[in-house]
Amino acid sequence: MTNAARLDQQIRFLVEADKLKAVARRTRLLDGSRFENSAEHTWHLMLLALILREHTTGSLDVLRALEIVAVHDLVEIDAGDTFAYDTAGQSTKAAREEAAADRVFGLLPPDQRDYVRGLWDEFEARVTPEAQFANALDRLQPLILNAHSSGGSWLDQALTRDDVLRRMAPVAQGLPGLWPTVERVVEAFGQNGVLKGSRSTE
Amino acid sequence: MTNAARLDQQIRFLVEADKLKAVARRTRLLDGSRFENSAEHTWHLMLLALILREHTTGSLDVLRALEIVAVHDLVEIDAGDTFAYDTAGQSTKAAREEAAADRVFGLLPPDQRDYVRGLWDEFEARVTPEAQFANALDRLQPLILNAHSSGGSWLDQALTRDDVLRRMAPVAQGLPGLWPTVERVVEAFGQNGVLKGSRSTE
Repeated sequence: MTNAARLDQQIRFLVEADKLKAVARRTRLLDGSRFENSAEHTWHLMLLALILREHTTGSLDVLRALEIVAVHDLVEIDAGDTFAYDTAGQSTKAAREEAAADRVFGLLPPDQRDYVRGLWDEFEARVTPEAQFANALDRLQPLILNAHSSGGSWLDQALTRDDVLRRMAPVAQGLPGLWPTVERVVEAFGQNGVLKGSRSTE
Repeated sequence: MTNAARLDQQIRFLVEADKLKAVARRTRLLDGSRFENSAEHTWHLMLLALILREHTTGSLDVLRALEIVAVHDLVEIDAGDTFAYDTAGQSTKAAREEAAADRVFGLLPPDQRDYVRGLWDEFEARVTPEAQFANALDRLQPLILNAHSSGGSWLDQALTRDDVLRRMAPVAQGLPGLWPTVERVVEAFGQNGVLKGSRSTE
């Protein structure tokens, strides 16, 4: 492949990536004006990564973690954002996202296609510390937004505290220093009735 | 400072950062639906950084470059996005952004405030290879969007080819492998009349 052809492929991929800015999530901006999109959500995760990395345990390849975060939602260009608590959507999510990964990452030159695919596979597998950190950020960020907007997207659902704590489990694994914060937020939104009570102690 | 107080400050900063998603730029999404905001623009730069880094010359601390990119527009939360070709706005930009940096970065614990301020100062000074790379991406990304949307934000202004080439100069410095692409795009949009002719050869 000539250098010009390689650069053309890279730019075609970067142009296609623009579509992630039009993928709406279920979380609203803190000003309530609209739903967040997956591109700005991803930027927010990268900022969380820089500011909160001290709360991980063990060593972390921060560059690798940022690379994983940067590409983790690109499959949504084709597959859309599947809401965390949408059971039907979750059952078809893997197949839809695999096909999206083939097409979207396939725009890149083969070596970069494989590299980015590897980043995304690593994110999905949640085995490495970097992937666990990235997944923790991906769960924590909407919790922070909800916590600072009177419940945010939680208000649209009849969720229990256990639903949210299960959803947040990757935070305990990838960013354990933030787990007490998660528990405190979930407890407060249980107390105020946004999250329903279904703890074993009730 | 206790660990809890430190974490509170970090989260307050991350919550404040949400406002960058409401700062509109002059560039439109490729689907033409709306103006791009500075948060999703920043994510796009980070993706460009990962895909195009091979086109730099010399060695580059990619993590440092990504950190610089991640925070480079946060001052716009207070100062707004100053359009590149707005001469009056450019004259007051530095003072407005300095004040914004004091306030926004000042939400962080002192060590992180100083660290993030250092990243932003480095971006603005454009001396290190990482800052030059970040600035190159920041200029290149709207050019790519304009090139793939029939001229995009250039259509709103009576710009010459020289105006755009001057604006793009940081690409020649920080991402020289992309400079021929910049020249080709500017030439094509000169030929089709979107950019006015004012080259010395005319």
